[in-house]
Amino acid sequence: MPIYNAPLKDMDFILNDVFHAEKFWQNNENLAHLDMATANAILEEMAKFSKNVILDLNRSADEEGGAQFNQGVVTTPKGFKEAFQQFADGGWIGLGANENFGGQGMPKMLTVLADEMIWSTNPSFMLYPLLTVGAGMAIDQAASEEQKATYLPKFYTGEWSGTMCLTEPHSGTDLGIIKTKAEPNADGSYNITGTKIFITSGEHDLCENIIHLVLAKTPDAPAGSRGISLFIVPKFLVNEEGSLGERNTLSAGSIEHKMGIKGSATCVMNFDAAKGFLVGKENQGLAAMFIMMNYERLSMGIQGIGASEYAYQNAAQYATDRLQGRSATGVKSPEKPADSILVHGDVRRMLLNVRANNEASRAFAVYVGQQLDITKFSNDAEAVRKANDRVALLTPIAKAYLTDKALDSALEAQMCFGGHGYIREWGMEQCIRDLRISQIYEGTNGVQAIDLIGRKTIKSNGAFIAEYIAEIREFSASMNDALSIKAATLDVCHQVEALTQFIIEQAKSNPDFSNAVAVDYLHAVGLLSFTYMFARIAQAAQSKPESFYQNKLVLAQYYVAKVLPDLAARVQRIRAGAELVMQLPEDYFTAQA
Amino acid sequence: MPIYNAPLKDMDFILNDVFHAEKFWQNNENLAHLDMATANAILEEMAKFSKNVILDLNRSADEEGGAQFNQGVVTTPKGFKEAFQQFADGGWIGLGANENFGGQGMPKMLTVLADEMIWSTNPSFMLYPLLTVGAGMAIDQAASEEQKATYLPKFYTGEWSGTMCLTEPHSGTDLGIIKTKAEPNADGSYNITGTKIFITSGEHDLCENIIHLVLAKTPDAPAGSRGISLFIVPKFLVNEEGSLGERNTLSAGSIEHKMGIKGSATCVMNFDAAKGFLVGKENQGLAAMFIMMNYERLSMGIQGIGASEYAYQNAAQYATDRLQGRSATGVKSPEKPADSILVHGDVRRMLLNVRANNEASRAFAVYVGQQLDITKFSNDAEAVRKANDRVALLTPIAKAYLTDKALDSALEAQMCFGGHGYIREWGMEQCIRDLRISQIYEGTNGVQAIDLIGRKTIKSNGAFIAEYIAEIREFSASMNDALSIKAATLDVCHQVEALTQFIIEQAKSNPDFSNAVAVDYLHAVGLLSFTYMFARIAQAAQSKPESFYQNKLVLAQYYVAKVLPDLAARVQRIRAGAELVMQLPEDYFTAQA
Repeated sequence: MPIYNAPLKDMDFILNDVFHAEKFWQNNENLAHLDMATANAILEEMAKFSKNVILDLNRSADEEGGAQFNQGVVTTPKGFKEAFQQFADGGWIGLGANENFGGQGMPKMLTVLADEMIWSTNPSFMLYPLLTVGAGMAIDQAASEEQKATYLPKFYTGEWSGTMCLTEPHSGTDLGIIKTKAEPNADGSYNITGTKIFITSGEHDLCENIIHLVLAKTPDAPAGSRGISLFIVPKFLVNEEGSLGERNTLSAGSIEHKMGIKGSATCVMNFDAAKGFLVGKENQGLAAMFIMMNYERLSMGIQGIGASEYAYQNAAQYATDRLQGRSATGVKSPEKPADSILVHGDVRRMLLNVRANNEASRAFAVYVGQQLDITKFSNDAEAVRKANDRVALLTPIAKAYLTDKALDSALEAQMCFGGHGYIREWGMEQCIRDLRISQIYEGTNGVQAIDLIGRKTIKSNGAFIAEYIAEIREFSASMNDALSIKAATLDVCHQVEALTQFIIEQAKSNPDFSNAVAVDYLHAVGLLSFTYMFARIAQAAQSKPESFYQNKLVLAQYYVAKVLPDLAARVQRIRAGAELVMQLPEDYFTAQA
Repeated sequence: MPIYNAPLKDMDFILNDVFHAEKFWQNNENLAHLDMATANAILEEMAKFSKNVILDLNRSADEEGGAQFNQGVVTTPKGFKEAFQQFADGGWIGLGANENFGGQGMPKMLTVLADEMIWSTNPSFMLYPLLTVGAGMAIDQAASEEQKATYLPKFYTGEWSGTMCLTEPHSGTDLGIIKTKAEPNADGSYNITGTKIFITSGEHDLCENIIHLVLAKTPDAPAGSRGISLFIVPKFLVNEEGSLGERNTLSAGSIEHKMGIKGSATCVMNFDAAKGFLVGKENQGLAAMFIMMNYERLSMGIQGIGASEYAYQNAAQYATDRLQGRSATGVKSPEKPADSILVHGDVRRMLLNVRANNEASRAFAVYVGQQLDITKFSNDAEAVRKANDRVALLTPIAKAYLTDKALDSALEAQMCFGGHGYIREWGMEQCIRDLRISQIYEGTNGVQAIDLIGRKTIKSNGAFIAEYIAEIREFSASMNDALSIKAATLDVCHQVEALTQFIIEQAKSNPDFSNAVAVDYLHAVGLLSFTYMFARIAQAAQSKPESFYQNKLVLAQYYVAKVLPDLAARVQRIRAGAELVMQLPEDYFTAQA
């Protein structure tokens, strides 16, 4: 069976040594109650839960065939109900949520690490609380006080769960063309009618009620994305005193049969004049939903880290145990029939790629978490403005770059197993199947890249990325010159800066340019970000003599030597422009070859 | 349901315009019976069989859960038995096999194209005849006349099938440590005892007998790979007159539960003093088995092409049909609620990457097929020598580079579907699961890369690659200067030449060097090969005004602008050396992070 041990020492290193978390918390009146001892205690508890409770359920849920649908009723895999109850009882659902409604109020830079462990050990399980937390965040920020008081406490006890209902059969990325209707009733409620697809946890047996957040159009709404409103549509209507009332006229029509995350119920939801309650104002639903969406997008990046860490641990163990061939520099284990495959450079190359990805990704998630914490907890308006811009810039990186790199990593880890990696019982192929969705849902990675290059870069005339690069340069200036990554970091800053200027110029004369080079630009900014993370890691590790720290300096050098070269390819592709991408007529693509 | 239409026009273009197949055949006395009309008729028949018979069985076999095992008996998915009978009756099993034993004697440059269609439409089905063909080839080249007469005709009628039994639980890449024993009997036969795993078609219900080719060690065999012998071990012993005799003492212990190719039975085979018959001489089994292995390795590359073509066709159709958003240069389909997603550069980028991969891969497979045909059919000793060296050099490219690029391609095609790509019914996720094994089996792609850089390059002091580059330069010299790919081709030749010299130098002083940079070198030679293919395609297409040909010139330019830049990253990584790969101690990899 697959193994997992939470990387607690690395998590502590990143929080404490790299990002000086305790100092950051103590200097903020809203977080001053938190110290590293408490943070580490929380992470240790999650390490136990993830390893002891949900790890084994991951494989068994997949082997069972995942969630089951029968006449509108969804049954989750064996053990999920008990594990979910334990999770809820532990207060984990509301770990980062508003304390006024039963949450724990923990900062994001801590919760990303707790989340990583769940993503490592059971991504299907993670999706049940995840949507609740996202729905809770949207309600917390956009709904009325009465709505908050009605729904949020039930979310954080795990009695009720939440969903986000955006996609329709004909409308995914392009939400402006949704057809779900919201007809106003005399009592201020609305009748919601339409079909939503790909609804994670749309129906299940873990909670007594499910609160759907649904995008719909009111009768006189403007066309397109400016005419979308957000509604709370409960499975069971809620009586005034908070008890459950009658069943609403909505139901799951089916669940999807998917490549992976089979334990997660992905539902078709049919709303048939179901009673719904407006959140905020009419026609402002998309903005409210994007509060939730941006939260989910960072979560997808953490799904990537979790999977890549799990893949790494299992591949490293397999490579250590597997004996094949002999070292090119002479027999290493003469007492054994063959040496461990760790003697082969190609196996090390794969493992080091994955390891470097995990350590940089984890640091990056904590970095973005810290920026989110500044936006939420800081009283310094300029700091909040800067952090908001940074989060806007880096959310597509967190979602798309981290998941792209995670899939690369999981595939390399699977390859370390040879033929055994293709066999279900080792768990690697499930890891890849489960992970693949992270690149697709919550806006495909291509859509993320277009968001980065368009709204976040060209629209701001490069202001967000310029401020980010300025921060990286400032940090580099503080670094020891003896660290070879310092020069590499400055060089990447220069290259990405020049590339950004080139893109902004090209986009002025060619409206198709940015879309055609978006993914390459996303990867260029991702490489910049990971180089920056390794610069911070190296700076934090350099003065500590223990091998745990000194090995991080080697890994940082490895990153520069062996991963960063991808930047050269990205730069060449972007400079080659959009013309050849757009030149061929549409019918070329399906013409008989 | 997924679609498939064989790319017959492109196949004709590659055979006829790019590689002048008919002239090549007519100039060879052993192939002079073949003309393009016959070749195209064969391909058209296979196009019908693949589309009409096995395409639908691909999805249904996967949904059923694939091959089933029950107390030693394996049942293939519904419809496989009838389809296999039709396939055998059509003479397809022996399409490229020896005419003296019932084969059709067709050249490899034609059979690779027929094979591609089966790989596109049903890779699990393909694996049943594939191993038979490979076993037939090994017997044809290494066994006695009596053995050939006994087994080969039954293979090509489809009455019997073949397997290759190499891997054992503790021994995969490192065959020198196999434990299966062969004890000689007084009658000249041997008793074979041991367990073999990952045996494709080891047991199934399609044929009346299964002939296992088994690697084993005789009692006094030298240690390691020089002490391995090859045996024919039939499921049912064969009587003198050719009828089936008693059941041999071998059986399937179980079948594997895999990520994909579920319709293919992957068996654990237990040999319990099973009667076996030596092929060739004792201790020369590995060489005989590698006749078969090299055949399979090119087949894996064709598996890649088939999957990538299938993925492309379905993604291009989906992208054409799916309406989301509007073109950045203005509305393209005002009568529709949104434009086709083909207006978005990022979608085109993905489709063009896949299309470029397919056209270059297909040309490359035909090119390698032609080299194999020269080795088999030519009477010119120097031409045969050169072709043998070329096949030796390019087999790892055909196996590993084509399958690496195919997985990249299938993933990009899946991404064109957004969330629908993750849903089973669209067939894209199965395509990826089925394809993934091609990078792993018959020697992982890392092992292929080590073969390329070691045995094929460093060991020959670069002679094989030098001769290949000389051919490419000679071809380039014949090209029209107006073709922009000419300069690109010469530049890649120069870069790969310099890189090869660098590698040969480094390897002299560092035994670990080649293994650590092998995969990057494999990709560099792959990029050289695909650039060469596009040079040949462009040269063949340039003078023809129809859009079918002129679009190939655009695709060649796209390849140079958008795919070839990967070379810059590969070169940087190789020049960064092996030191950082090998530096960390073995226990670093599993130490608690």
